[in-house]
Amino acid sequence: MRSTRRVFLRSAALTGVGGAIGAGAALPGAAAAPASAGSGSAASGGLVPFYGTHQAGIVTPTQNYLQFAALDMVSDSAADLRRLLRAWTHAAALMSLGRLIGPVRAASRPPADTGEALGLGPAELTVTFGFGPSLFGAKNTDRFGLAGHRPAPLVDLPEFLGDAIEPAISNGDLGLQVCANDPQVAFHAVHELIRLAIGTAQPRWLLAGFGRTANSRHQALPRNLMGFQDGTANIKVEDTAALDRFVWASEPASPAWMRGGSYLVARRIEIALALWDSTDLDGQQDAIGRQKLAGIRLRPMPPTSHIVLASPERNGGEQILRRGYSFADGIAVPSRVPAAGLMFLCYQRDPRRQFIPIQRRIAGRDALSLYLRHVGSAIFACPPGAGPGGFVGESLLG
Amino acid sequence: MRSTRRVFLRSAALTGVGGAIGAGAALPGAAAAPASAGSGSAASGGLVPFYGTHQAGIVTPTQNYLQFAALDMVSDSAADLRRLLRAWTHAAALMSLGRLIGPVRAASRPPADTGEALGLGPAELTVTFGFGPSLFGAKNTDRFGLAGHRPAPLVDLPEFLGDAIEPAISNGDLGLQVCANDPQVAFHAVHELIRLAIGTAQPRWLLAGFGRTANSRHQALPRNLMGFQDGTANIKVEDTAALDRFVWASEPASPAWMRGGSYLVARRIEIALALWDSTDLDGQQDAIGRQKLAGIRLRPMPPTSHIVLASPERNGGEQILRRGYSFADGIAVPSRVPAAGLMFLCYQRDPRRQFIPIQRRIAGRDALSLYLRHVGSAIFACPPGAGPGGFVGESLLG
Repeated sequence: MRSTRRVFLRSAALTGVGGAIGAGAALPGAAAAPASAGSGSAASGGLVPFYGTHQAGIVTPTQNYLQFAALDMVSDSAADLRRLLRAWTHAAALMSLGRLIGPVRAASRPPADTGEALGLGPAELTVTFGFGPSLFGAKNTDRFGLAGHRPAPLVDLPEFLGDAIEPAISNGDLGLQVCANDPQVAFHAVHELIRLAIGTAQPRWLLAGFGRTANSRHQALPRNLMGFQDGTANIKVEDTAALDRFVWASEPASPAWMRGGSYLVARRIEIALALWDSTDLDGQQDAIGRQKLAGIRLRPMPPTSHIVLASPERNGGEQILRRGYSFADGIAVPSRVPAAGLMFLCYQRDPRRQFIPIQRRIAGRDALSLYLRHVGSAIFACPPGAGPGGFVGESLLG
Repeated sequence: MRSTRRVFLRSAALTGVGGAIGAGAALPGAAAAPASAGSGSAASGGLVPFYGTHQAGIVTPTQNYLQFAALDMVSDSAADLRRLLRAWTHAAALMSLGRLIGPVRAASRPPADTGEALGLGPAELTVTFGFGPSLFGAKNTDRFGLAGHRPAPLVDLPEFLGDAIEPAISNGDLGLQVCANDPQVAFHAVHELIRLAIGTAQPRWLLAGFGRTANSRHQALPRNLMGFQDGTANIKVEDTAALDRFVWASEPASPAWMRGGSYLVARRIEIALALWDSTDLDGQQDAIGRQKLAGIRLRPMPPTSHIVLASPERNGGEQILRRGYSFADGIAVPSRVPAAGLMFLCYQRDPRRQFIPIQRRIAGRDALSLYLRHVGSAIFACPPGAGPGGFVGESLLG
């Protein structure tokens, strides 16, 4: 499957993705993707293929910056939804090559590309699209005729112990996970995708992140905003056997249109930083289950520690592929310390067997729960990738 | 003056800043500053000297990320204020070397360093401290006995045409400008400084930024979130004659304690992105005064364009040193496009002759005003730098 992606990609770079790439190619200042693809630095130049068997941004080594948007359809027309997905696919493919999504030059019209990423290169941009449960509707609210196609694993997430979910920053008909190694490239992409949706869908919430969870053997282990290393026990994207077992959807649990896709669970988790910062080192380490400085597991392991209760051994061997991001957002009230948190993002083949039972086991029960508050929640079915000329979601809507 | 800073710095690196550096040096995982100072990449390793004639972060080439905090004193004791400035100076000097601000190891106490920047290096961190007008008080509110020392250039900013200033994100007794090339290093620094102030001062507002305004001959010109290059006409930090003329405070306009300091004006400016994005290219270019793609000035120059009205020629030859940052923060209401803006930061020797008359000339008058809303405002007197063993603010409070 990985080699299939590479073939798609090489082909796209050489042919201009079926001619669609031409829109930005002649513009001065537009980064020419093929030229920079080979020489790009990790900081800004790298290119991640958009087209492929799987969508990019799932088993891509986590980039440094996130913009995550959820949108609700304002149109009830399946044709509009299809047009939007075509336009998004086209724009995401261009931006993944570091190109403009359209010309800036026509004086009497608004620029077709807003321009803020000009000259920054692709920066390993990925855009990953997902469908929320509400897109599929129910018997009386089946706006797009999709109710019969809702995947069984795309359940409404239950309420977990201690949840403090705010609807305004939860759920959504459509999910957009945008990741890049330059925050301005990520902003530009989500900005353009939201702009392309005007009249068809409008954003419900949007969150920026930094400080990724590691998911590759080649990444240093970063620390989260609690000061602990994160990602040690994560599935590694190089472990294709684990990806097939834990990440990629397949029949019969999933419908055929989701084959090669994955289910994303997003949880916006606030950290009670004032409380955490005033907790002694033993208390912090016992809550996590690791030494703060060295990152190694405590011996003996505290039975209510986060890593014990979240471990595959306690959860029927199940694992999830995490690719979360830290976020920080002004001052927390009433504690008046920096507001900080984790945008927990995880991919899996069936949330009913993975995220949900794992979270049921730890929510309100592990020693870390005292310091965390889940305020946002969403689930999306991320369909398989598209080939040149196709669009993401074609297997459902094409 | 620049060579003086270098001497201070080299000395600090070699001697461990009067012994104070030792706190973090023995901890595993703590970045050893002298080792990384010479080899640091621009991305994360570089070191900017903390000690010097001037505070770092004013004529430092703008780093990639910002955290800006304003705090209000909750203590009325001048001794507490002095203790806070000593503690802040000590911590900022350590963090500028990529070191922990204290040990993490004592099991029965909260870690003295919260740990999230462990292993990330100094990342060219700078911390710049400023004093707001409210710190100096007035006759009946002179909490710290400083009313007689308020610099004449530290005026209360007037209300400008079109201002929509929100008090909760404006002003403050103390200002902290934290800049670094890693957003987690910047977060860690502002987190620690806010934590060190608990019981003495509490944060009033805090804003994160990215996408700097260029101020060095060696920096590429980035684009702001309106898609235009920014910083073309800025003072360059290599132009020491311009810095002496426009940036550094001196007598007789400023009191002796501000000699070598500078005045910072901060304006949080929201961009009406929905309106801007729907404006045709001619309208965008006329508002700015430049071509969007090429960045060159329009000929003839539209008389109400931003760059004409803000130009030194129209403002008695006066200039300011800008080092602003873009910010993005979820969804704007009611337009439901990404909320985006500019944290405008500028340094100058006397705001009465520089920012204020320039802003009076452009506010509500230049064609760009239609797209901008000033919602936050602050002014700070940033004292000169400290030498090892001293503290920032010593010339006022020592």
